[in-house]
Amino acid sequence: MAFPGLYRTAGKLSRILGANKSPWGAAFLSSSCPHMAVGPVEPPLTADHCGLSRLPFPDVTSQDFDFFQRLLPGRAVTDEDDLKTYNIDWLRTVRGNSKLLLRPQNTEEVCKILKYCNDRHLAVTPQGGNTGLVGGSVPVFDEIILSTALMDKVISFDQVSGALVCQSGCILESLNQYLEGQGYIMPLDLGAKGSCHIGGNLATNAGGLRLLRYGSLRGTVLGLEAVLPDGSVLNCLNSLRKDNTGYDLKQLFIGSEGTLGVITAVSILCPRKPRSANVALLGCESFSKVLQVFTLCRDHLGEILSAYEFQDLESMRVVQTHLKLTNPLQDSAFYILIETAGSCEHHDEEKLNAFLEKALESGLVTSGTVATDRGKIKSLWALRECITEALAHDGYVYKYDLSIPVEKLYDLVEETRARLGTTARRVVGYGHLGDGNLHLNITSETKSESLLAALEPFVYEWTAQHNGSISAEHGLGFKKRDHIYYSKSREAVQLMQKLKKMLDPKGIMNPYKTIPSAD
Amino acid sequence: MAFPGLYRTAGKLSRILGANKSPWGAAFLSSSCPHMAVGPVEPPLTADHCGLSRLPFPDVTSQDFDFFQRLLPGRAVTDEDDLKTYNIDWLRTVRGNSKLLLRPQNTEEVCKILKYCNDRHLAVTPQGGNTGLVGGSVPVFDEIILSTALMDKVISFDQVSGALVCQSGCILESLNQYLEGQGYIMPLDLGAKGSCHIGGNLATNAGGLRLLRYGSLRGTVLGLEAVLPDGSVLNCLNSLRKDNTGYDLKQLFIGSEGTLGVITAVSILCPRKPRSANVALLGCESFSKVLQVFTLCRDHLGEILSAYEFQDLESMRVVQTHLKLTNPLQDSAFYILIETAGSCEHHDEEKLNAFLEKALESGLVTSGTVATDRGKIKSLWALRECITEALAHDGYVYKYDLSIPVEKLYDLVEETRARLGTTARRVVGYGHLGDGNLHLNITSETKSESLLAALEPFVYEWTAQHNGSISAEHGLGFKKRDHIYYSKSREAVQLMQKLKKMLDPKGIMNPYKTIPSAD
Repeated sequence: MAFPGLYRTAGKLSRILGANKSPWGAAFLSSSCPHMAVGPVEPPLTADHCGLSRLPFPDVTSQDFDFFQRLLPGRAVTDEDDLKTYNIDWLRTVRGNSKLLLRPQNTEEVCKILKYCNDRHLAVTPQGGNTGLVGGSVPVFDEIILSTALMDKVISFDQVSGALVCQSGCILESLNQYLEGQGYIMPLDLGAKGSCHIGGNLATNAGGLRLLRYGSLRGTVLGLEAVLPDGSVLNCLNSLRKDNTGYDLKQLFIGSEGTLGVITAVSILCPRKPRSANVALLGCESFSKVLQVFTLCRDHLGEILSAYEFQDLESMRVVQTHLKLTNPLQDSAFYILIETAGSCEHHDEEKLNAFLEKALESGLVTSGTVATDRGKIKSLWALRECITEALAHDGYVYKYDLSIPVEKLYDLVEETRARLGTTARRVVGYGHLGDGNLHLNITSETKSESLLAALEPFVYEWTAQHNGSISAEHGLGFKKRDHIYYSKSREAVQLMQKLKKMLDPKGIMNPYKTIPSAD
Repeated sequence: MAFPGLYRTAGKLSRILGANKSPWGAAFLSSSCPHMAVGPVEPPLTADHCGLSRLPFPDVTSQDFDFFQRLLPGRAVTDEDDLKTYNIDWLRTVRGNSKLLLRPQNTEEVCKILKYCNDRHLAVTPQGGNTGLVGGSVPVFDEIILSTALMDKVISFDQVSGALVCQSGCILESLNQYLEGQGYIMPLDLGAKGSCHIGGNLATNAGGLRLLRYGSLRGTVLGLEAVLPDGSVLNCLNSLRKDNTGYDLKQLFIGSEGTLGVITAVSILCPRKPRSANVALLGCESFSKVLQVFTLCRDHLGEILSAYEFQDLESMRVVQTHLKLTNPLQDSAFYILIETAGSCEHHDEEKLNAFLEKALESGLVTSGTVATDRGKIKSLWALRECITEALAHDGYVYKYDLSIPVEKLYDLVEETRARLGTTARRVVGYGHLGDGNLHLNITSETKSESLLAALEPFVYEWTAQHNGSISAEHGLGFKKRDHIYYSKSREAVQLMQKLKKMLDPKGIMNPYKTIPSAD
């Protein structure tokens, strides 16, 4: 550390909030929930209940299989059991019926696969870590699954600029660990980090926990390589921070959910690993106080604020009940998780102290705990990050991922709770308050059409009335595709359809997803 | 301020570097160079020497003029003298021959203009503040000029989220002043701020002085409204930080230099105004020391570093000679301008002190001065920001705006200087080192074909060999269009051409610019 002898405030956090302080130097961790497909029950085949007709793609023939077997020896999988986890999404709510899984190792193989599929008019679903929450990464019918799991090599890392170049199948957490060893971190983080692929992160324009600090992938992705549906390579894999030569084609692929091509490599700008990190979990009596604390927090923490997450009591209870996690605080209507990340430990502590003193004095916050050591930081993050996983234990989960102006954000949770009464098992609200992003989740023991009818279009209409977005960060995938009009105009959707048609004239890439079909 | 009585280091900066300290609370200023068309000489008509044939757009007829006069009473300008400044670029290197300038006040008028032009197949050049440096904002032949100058209204500003929505003709500096009054700033800043329009900033994907801290417009622009060439409105004007519903169409228009439509309104995420700002100007003996200081600086200043600019001695001399600015330091081979912006004055000073002590002790820096008061900060910024203006006084300027890996960045300046010998009046290198962005400028008394032949393709080939970009932030416009292949593959350019054709099938929007024509 560059500032020996200057820990004037060391221990003060402990005095304020009873933290078990133990400095550990390296910082900025959150918890990774184990990737777990919940429950033994196999969801019904999507094809049987989705109300869609299979488009006239030909079936995969034995000649097709022979071709792929020659191209990818031992990596063209047809065994039904082996295919199972690739056909079902992480939430176990959709199930495709693909008969063929392809596992290419490099861009050249992806080119050959897509060229063949395009020539033969065979439909393809690209799949990363299969942790998406809108059914975008599994087939709807029998599309061929193209998995990026074996494309997991780091290509280069520039110690001066922080530019990382890697294949698209690299797992987010592995990349972060690799970078931490070199004094850097990934600019994004999310609960599924232990399974999700960086290519999938780009394809869904993942947001997550660090967006407040490091901005979106639209700014941090420096370049990418994609294979177009016709098998040609679009190489935009530069590592320059600035490049204004023509239209920024890489943006087309960020957030297009595999419908325009397959992302095969990524170049991304990584920030320095912060020298100091603190996490505070605070209890708050009302949502209006959560908002006031946010303002106070931005005033005091300024440039070191790296996360401002909130969760309600019900979402705290679900992680306590199903995952046996310990809530270190007394019951509160709301909890706030604040993370700071900075370059100077004692400055960060001073800022955090000043903020916490003010928050407690003013009565905005009723209880709290602060973590500065790796283990406790992880356990506080787990309370927030494992909500998704814990909810799945309830049975069936109706998930809404919404952008709403922050002042109105929790009104929707309360209205939904009032509307559903006892028909839902649980209605919870949590999310990235700093980004205006609410995760509204409703659970029931099994899927219920009447509950769904009470939720939709109510939730979407409410969001549209408040100029929100019906998908803040999850994307549209299969489940939300037809709801796009709540957030986008007809003209905008028509332009998207034209783009799709231009890049994928045969419509083979991840059909039935993201953009409603032009007819 | 939230930290009374804690100014432990107050005055220490003065002791280290002789700064004339005078705290002023509000911070984060740079200088705005007066917008000045240099020299009395009118450049030759572009049409006469560009070697291009005018595309078969019809001439503007008196019926056309009558239509526009009715649509925009008093705002359809045909007077030759009035048109002059709109036909000539800021650098006075290109001159169009437009006979008609249109000054709409709102989106509806822009729609009617473009619909009419598209129906009649009339070519249109959109123009903001006309401060571009690649000839993108003036006509090549007689294209109608559509100026956004009267579209200068702020539509809304959200104090909680920091989202600003405004018409595209708002001047960058005016927006910044408006925001400062509300405790915010614009996320971008550049020398031309006093004249450039926010719509033009988006259309050219402007980089500038704050990119190091706040990232690119690809991340900070939340939404935009654009009128397509057929006169229809594409409304993507949302103000949400996160929205993953379909393809991100706004990205198409950012950086497309008016070739796909006219940006009429902008929604942009603005950061809080920093409470504390410091600027240091340092002298350095070699470029390798400039790089070492950069590493030291990132280590010590971390999250408060907001600019790391460099300029060589020759570029310091040009502002001293032509603009009579005072260099407060002794002559050095290189100068570094560092800006910090943070939320806590004494923390920022401690960080800056520690950095400066180390930089001086280690001999990396030979001289320096620090400014914390508004006036001195402006005068230090002026030395860096007014280089562009000062160079124009030399006569003709060959401008190159390159992204190059930082380690190699200054090699090109030295090689160019050696290559040209005494045939150039001046060869200068300066730029945004923190972003790997070099501005290489060569001056001569008048335009010289032999000098040009010595520079091109040499500069472009050198840049391409080092995997750089031949336009980091200026765009391609008219002057660099055909050099796109040094930075982009044929496949990528073909895809850009397809996009252009899809959105502007008649090719009326800013023809001869940015993307080489498909034939």
